[in-house]
Amino acid sequence: MKLSPRQEEIIKLVKEGQPITSEALASKLGVTRAALRPDLAVLTMIGALDARPKVGYVYTEKPMNNLLYDYITNIKVKDIMSKPAFVNEETMVYDAIVNLFLTDVGTLFVESDGFLIGAVSRKDFLKIAIGGTDIHKVPVGVIMTRMPNIIFISKEESAYTAAKKIIEHEIDSIPVVEKVLDEEQKDQYKIIGKISKTNITKLFVKMGNGQ
Amino acid sequence: MKLSPRQEEIIKLVKEGQPITSEALASKLGVTRAALRPDLAVLTMIGALDARPKVGYVYTEKPMNNLLYDYITNIKVKDIMSKPAFVNEETMVYDAIVNLFLTDVGTLFVESDGFLIGAVSRKDFLKIAIGGTDIHKVPVGVIMTRMPNIIFISKEESAYTAAKKIIEHEIDSIPVVEKVLDEEQKDQYKIIGKISKTNITKLFVKMGNGQ
Repeated sequence: MKLSPRQEEIIKLVKEGQPITSEALASKLGVTRAALRPDLAVLTMIGALDARPKVGYVYTEKPMNNLLYDYITNIKVKDIMSKPAFVNEETMVYDAIVNLFLTDVGTLFVESDGFLIGAVSRKDFLKIAIGGTDIHKVPVGVIMTRMPNIIFISKEESAYTAAKKIIEHEIDSIPVVEKVLDEEQKDQYKIIGKISKTNITKLFVKMGNGQ
Repeated sequence: MKLSPRQEEIIKLVKEGQPITSEALASKLGVTRAALRPDLAVLTMIGALDARPKVGYVYTEKPMNNLLYDYITNIKVKDIMSKPAFVNEETMVYDAIVNLFLTDVGTLFVESDGFLIGAVSRKDFLKIAIGGTDIHKVPVGVIMTRMPNIIFISKEESAYTAAKKIIEHEIDSIPVVEKVLDEEQKDQYKIIGKISKTNITKLFVKMGNGQ
């Protein structure tokens, strides 16, 4: 998005003398208030300026932010999540790795009685595979990351929050869960999807495509 | 971004009677052309409407597209690329995997005389590690993807193009290269960075943060 020279000039004037009224801006630019209105509407819309009633315009220092933030946070986890792949904790590491290749994912989630109990990534598998251990004899439960140390997300949260958790916790993939109570009335989580860096990268491409 | 009721109404009228002049729109809405100008400026800016000189306004069917597309395609590979990690093709697979963990990357690039000749990913390593081969005795050159089968990108291209290549070719990481001529005047590529799904996910988070 390119601002017009006049829009750039308005931003400069607001930065210098904020808060500044539209009358003052119009007089500095030698135009009428009516002539300024479209530019002020655009600058407010994109979040470059903030219009404070009875005070005037101030610079928000976050041009594009409003628009992009609204757009990005409106995309929900459920809109972009994909199908997760599962193993049991008793599955041998070798068989789990074969499963990883067959389902073409980077992380397997581990369930017990339909509830999330662990996760194991390509990195975890690679670590054990080079360690000299017989991976036909070690079950996934030995090497997986175990609850409650698993970061998860619900389907109604934003794709932005999912991406933030992925980056903050340095993980490749995050399970999408629904909270349920088990027979003992304890919180458990059912896995209904996953978000990986691939989902976020695909979303970024879609945004650039205008989809 | 939320459009105002009047902006929604304008879009509806344009869809129904396009191309439509601002005079016609003003008369249908019972307001002056001057009063409409800010709304039309905003709608044109965000790409919902296109103003055709001497014809009128048409609906572009891609609201947000212009803005997002411009924003996204303005971010260059060089703005978000990170440091690549290298091995030689003679490096033994075991040592390369150790290198992979120490540099905390998902893909290693293989150079010869300073030029890109191959790439090897966590997936490639995992495949060989479970195959029963002695990974202390197999060099990276045996398992790597070899030029010219490597997808690369230049630092002046957009982050969007990098993300698109990553998705289309189903790779985790793409080397950023500079073309140079070798002694025999043949095209060669020097690696100066890399873009991974992590870089794109970080960029997405930054966009949502308004940075």
